[in-house]
Amino acid sequence: MAPTGKPTLAVVGATGAVGAVMLQILSQRADVWGEIRLIASPRSAGRKLAVRGQEVEVVALTEDAFAGVDVAMFDVPDEVAAEWAPVAAARGAVVVDNSGAFRMDPEVPLVVPEVNPHALRNRPRGIVANPNCTTLSMIVALGALNAEFGLRELVVSSYQAVSGAGRAGVETLRAQLSLVAGTELGTKPGDVRRAVGDDTGPFPEPVALNVVPWAGSLRADGWSSEEMKVRDESRKILGLPALPVAVTCVRVPVVTTHSLTVHARFQGEVTVDGAREILATAPGVVLYDDPGAGEFPTPADVVGTDPTWVGRVRRALDDPTALELFVCGDNLRKGAALNTAQIAELVAAEITGHGGPARH
Amino acid sequence: MAPTGKPTLAVVGATGAVGAVMLQILSQRADVWGEIRLIASPRSAGRKLAVRGQEVEVVALTEDAFAGVDVAMFDVPDEVAAEWAPVAAARGAVVVDNSGAFRMDPEVPLVVPEVNPHALRNRPRGIVANPNCTTLSMIVALGALNAEFGLRELVVSSYQAVSGAGRAGVETLRAQLSLVAGTELGTKPGDVRRAVGDDTGPFPEPVALNVVPWAGSLRADGWSSEEMKVRDESRKILGLPALPVAVTCVRVPVVTTHSLTVHARFQGEVTVDGAREILATAPGVVLYDDPGAGEFPTPADVVGTDPTWVGRVRRALDDPTALELFVCGDNLRKGAALNTAQIAELVAAEITGHGGPARH
Repeated sequence: MAPTGKPTLAVVGATGAVGAVMLQILSQRADVWGEIRLIASPRSAGRKLAVRGQEVEVVALTEDAFAGVDVAMFDVPDEVAAEWAPVAAARGAVVVDNSGAFRMDPEVPLVVPEVNPHALRNRPRGIVANPNCTTLSMIVALGALNAEFGLRELVVSSYQAVSGAGRAGVETLRAQLSLVAGTELGTKPGDVRRAVGDDTGPFPEPVALNVVPWAGSLRADGWSSEEMKVRDESRKILGLPALPVAVTCVRVPVVTTHSLTVHARFQGEVTVDGAREILATAPGVVLYDDPGAGEFPTPADVVGTDPTWVGRVRRALDDPTALELFVCGDNLRKGAALNTAQIAELVAAEITGHGGPARH
Repeated sequence: MAPTGKPTLAVVGATGAVGAVMLQILSQRADVWGEIRLIASPRSAGRKLAVRGQEVEVVALTEDAFAGVDVAMFDVPDEVAAEWAPVAAARGAVVVDNSGAFRMDPEVPLVVPEVNPHALRNRPRGIVANPNCTTLSMIVALGALNAEFGLRELVVSSYQAVSGAGRAGVETLRAQLSLVAGTELGTKPGDVRRAVGDDTGPFPEPVALNVVPWAGSLRADGWSSEEMKVRDESRKILGLPALPVAVTCVRVPVVTTHSLTVHARFQGEVTVDGAREILATAPGVVLYDDPGAGEFPTPADVVGTDPTWVGRVRRALDDPTALELFVCGDNLRKGAALNTAQIAELVAAEITGHGGPARH
């Protein structure tokens, strides 16, 4: 810990798309940190980035970079996290990892502070996992409803933004939009594909003037890794390991903010008024639901904000135990950097004696 | 009937977005028609449009315009259809109407030739209704699965193209894309809205770099008219008036081709292999489903084609009676003009004695 009595934070992957948002968020939130150390790959070492109004020089990822670090937030590829998170933990840092490397490890808690903060206490490996951005874009709202009504089933379809695929995703959409804007494209088979060419960046198909029902890699029985993450992580966070969850993930030409339609079935009858009351008062949730007045969340309005936005709340016409929702969340903020920062702050409160006892 | 022995067809609304596709389709399909008469509002009368390689002059919508017409395909606003379809029917034409005016009329059959051609026979008003484009973009595939497995429940989310809102929808998206392409927009709250201005055309929110969870007008309990259409029409076409159907309709920045995710529950256990066999052989359906090889339908590839494309066929991991599907259909072709033309051809076959007895 720094002589100030405030813990030292390391940001690993500070130069990436999520890293940039992490630095913004650290500058906006209550200043609980002493030193903030920025760590990235050796080729980024020496760059200077702004955090809390100061220029900080990026240092290379080495074991010694974690000397004196109390909490290390990681946003790096899975394989880098798998190698380096245990190194940081062995040096005494509590790691909050935003990769997929540890999320389903039974010895690593998967934490959303509004939903399961208690899970943070039990972290025998010294590692805490941050959920996938798609799960995080809806789970705060579903956690609130589950606490009251008891979830029995989820059917989810996603409308995922290109920044979920990192800077390359954003650059790909922007380049494709420049090629299709001002044209008559989108009316003949393959015309968009011919216009944007064979290099579709991180996506298997053109994403401008298109939607692409694929995210991640192929898993068993035709499921995508993204769909399996939403199912597995939702179950773990909600503490409902047998919850039926059916997910289809689709990429859409939106820069940032994931949207999801949710068909949620509960233990007993629900009412729209009851659901609205829960959502209107749940921490981290904004209920924005008056379609007669044109009020429902869309990515264009939600991007850049912290909460999970919920609209289009309806009870299924044929099932009094089911609700239909449209949910939006900024996939780089709550979907990644913000939730990581919130977890890190809970750990900081433990360390400085403002929270429960640290177990690491 | 014309002296050729071929029936006379009228196309009412020939100058609209769907009308233009109707003329294309009439030029592409088997030539079962004698005269093809083009009818539109008086301000479009006198224009010449190409159909079957000939220039045909548009005539104004009057009662006399239907003299000698055997079949009249209507694509006009609901209120125009409500007024003029009975006029055409009274003059002896069988009306095939693509508006919403008659779809739920118990005396008007709602027909999809691959699913319920038998319903065509019973048309006491002389009017046959063509389903809504969103319903039509998925129903051929669901009809085939229902015939084999027996549907028990549907949960549907749509990814609807802007041309579902007519030429104004397409022009709005194209104008907005020209404003956002080449910019850094899509990363700050409201930045897209400010760039595109207050005139969002037929949509309640910007549709470029966005998705909008609204289509149609407000119905009871927060449902949109589009969502109610998909529910009511699917039940009527499938002959399952009590089928539980939960729908959320969302507009996406795609020019043409609606996509839908479908969670379909059946009477008993299903297998992916069984479903694939049905879909691979069903008339009007293309199974395109090998995600490991990058094969799944997207609007960019489906636009301009006739079939209903199905991919991402998976069995729900927690329910052996449920399938997950991603379905695409060109909302102007099968979703509107093609299905109308197919119905009209069935009526023509009746009239000329190649089908069953005409009842009108």
